Amino acid sequence: METSDWTDRIRTFAEEREWQQFHTPKNLAMALSVEASELVEIFQWLTPEESAAIMSTDRGQAVRDEVADVMTYLLRFADVLDIDLDAAMAAKTASSAKRYTVEHSKGSAAKR
Amino acid sequence: METSDWTDRIRTFAEEREWQQFHTPKNLAMALSVEASELVEIFQWLTPEESAAIMSTDRGQAVRDEVADVMTYLLRFADVLDIDLDAAMAAKTASSAKRYTVEHSKGSAAKR
Amino acid sequence: METSDWTDRIRTFAEEREWQQFHTPKNLAMALSVEASELVEIFQWLTPEESAAIMSTDRGQAVRDEVADVMTYLLRFADVLDIDLDAAMAAKTASSAKRYTVEHSKGSAAKR
Amino acid sequence: METSDWTDRIRTFAEEREWQQFHTPKNLAMALSVEASELVEIFQWLTPEESAAIMSTDRGQAVRDEVADVMTYLLRFADVLDIDLDAAMAAKTASSAKRYTVEHSKGSAAKR
Repeated sequence: METSDWTDRIRTFAEEREWQQFHTPKNLAMALSVEASELVEIFQWLTPEESAAIMSTDRGQAVRDEVADVMTYLLRFADVLDIDLDAAMAAKTASSAKRYTVEHSKGSAAKR
Repeated sequence: METSDWTDRIRTFAEEREWQQFHTPKNLAMALSVEASELVEIFQWLTPEESAAIMSTDRGQAVRDEVADVMTYLLRFADVLDIDLDAAMAAKTASSAKRYTVEHSKGSAAKR
Repeated sequence: METSDWTDRIRTFAEEREWQQFHTPKNLAMALSVEASELVEIFQWLTPEESAAIMSTDRGQAVRDEVADVMTYLLRFADVLDIDLDAAMAAKTASSAKRYTVEHSKGSAAKR
Repeated sequence: METSDWTDRIRTFAEEREWQQFHTPKNLAMALSVEASELVEIFQWLTPEESAAIMSTDRGQAVRDEVADVMTYLLRFADVLDIDLDAAMAAKTASSAKRYTVEHSKGSAAKR
C-alpha cells in the first residue's frame, strides 16, 4: 500500500464534508485511540489461540474494518501535522534497534 | 510510504528477537491501543489551538515517535493476520462514502 | 457510593454467569480501557464548551452509562487482584502531593 | 471505600492548583483513557497465567498506582459533570441483568 494515495483520498473526503473544523490534532488523536480500542474490544475475552484464528470467524470482516479505521485516522493525523511517515519510521526503527539489541532482547518482551 | 517495505523490516526485527511468541493478534491489538493512548497523552490538557501548533514545540519529536509506534504495531498486526491493507482501505472507504454522503454530513460530525 | 457494596454485587453477577474464566486481570484491563474509550468517543468531536454541556443533551444518559461501565470493570479488576482501593488511593494521593506541589504546579498542567 | 470522601479531596487538590481550567469533561475523559491504557501496558505481553500472578511480582505496586489513577480521573470526571455514581451504577446494573440473563449468558462472553 502506498500511503500517500490514501492520504490524498482521505483529505478530499474530509474537505468535501467540511470536516477540517473537527480535525484538530487533538481530536484526531482521540479518534485514533477510539478505533484502536474497537479493535481491542474484538479480542478482549478471547484466549491467545482464539485470537490467532479470528480471521476465519464471523468477526474477520470487523477486524479488517477496524484496521482500516485506525489507518485512516493515523494517515489523517499525519497529514494535518505534515509528518513525513517514512522519516518518522526510519528514525524510530533506528532508535529501537539500539534499545532492543538482539543480544539483550532475544526471547524477552521486557521494556528497555 | 510503501507499507510493504516496512512490514518486511518489522517482521525481520521481530523474528531476530524471537518475539513471535508475544505477537498474538490479541497482544498486538493491546500494544497498538497503548501507543495510540501515548499520542493522546501528549494532547490531553491542550487547547485545540495549542494542539494545532504542537510540531513547533519541544513535543514535536515525541509526536513523530508515537505516530511511528502506532504505524509499527498496525503493520505488524495486519502482517500477523495476513490482512491486505489496500483491500481493507478500499472496502472501508466505499462503505464510509455511502454512510457519510456529502449531502447529509456536510459540516456535521454526527455518527451515522 | 460505598464501593464494597458494588464489588460484591458485581462478583455475584459474574459468578452466576460463570464469567470467572474470562475475568483474568489482563482481560479486565482491556475491558476497562475499551469502556474508557467509549466515553472518549462521546467527546471526540466536541469543543471544550460543548463537552461541558453534555449532560443536558441527548448524550447525557450515555455518559452516565459509560461511567458506570468503567467503574464496574475497575471494581471487578481490583476485586480479582485483591487490591485495597482506599490504601491505593492514599498512597497515590500522597505521592501526587509531593510531585505536584502547589508552588510548582499552580496553573500548570505540566507532567512532573 | 466511600467515593465521596475521595471526590472531595481530589476536588480540593485540583482547586489548590487552579487546574479547573484543564478539567473539562473532554480532557478528563482523555486522561481517564490514558491511565486505563497504562494499566493495559503492564499486561500486554503477559500470558493469562502471568497476568493472574502480577501482584506478587515487582509490577504489583505499578498496578496499584494505575488503579488509583483511573479511579481518581473517574471520580473527578463524575464530579465535574455532577453524576450520581450510585444512581448510575444502579441503572446500569439493572439494564445488564436484563441483557445478560443467567439463562442466555452462562459460560458465554458474547455481547448481547
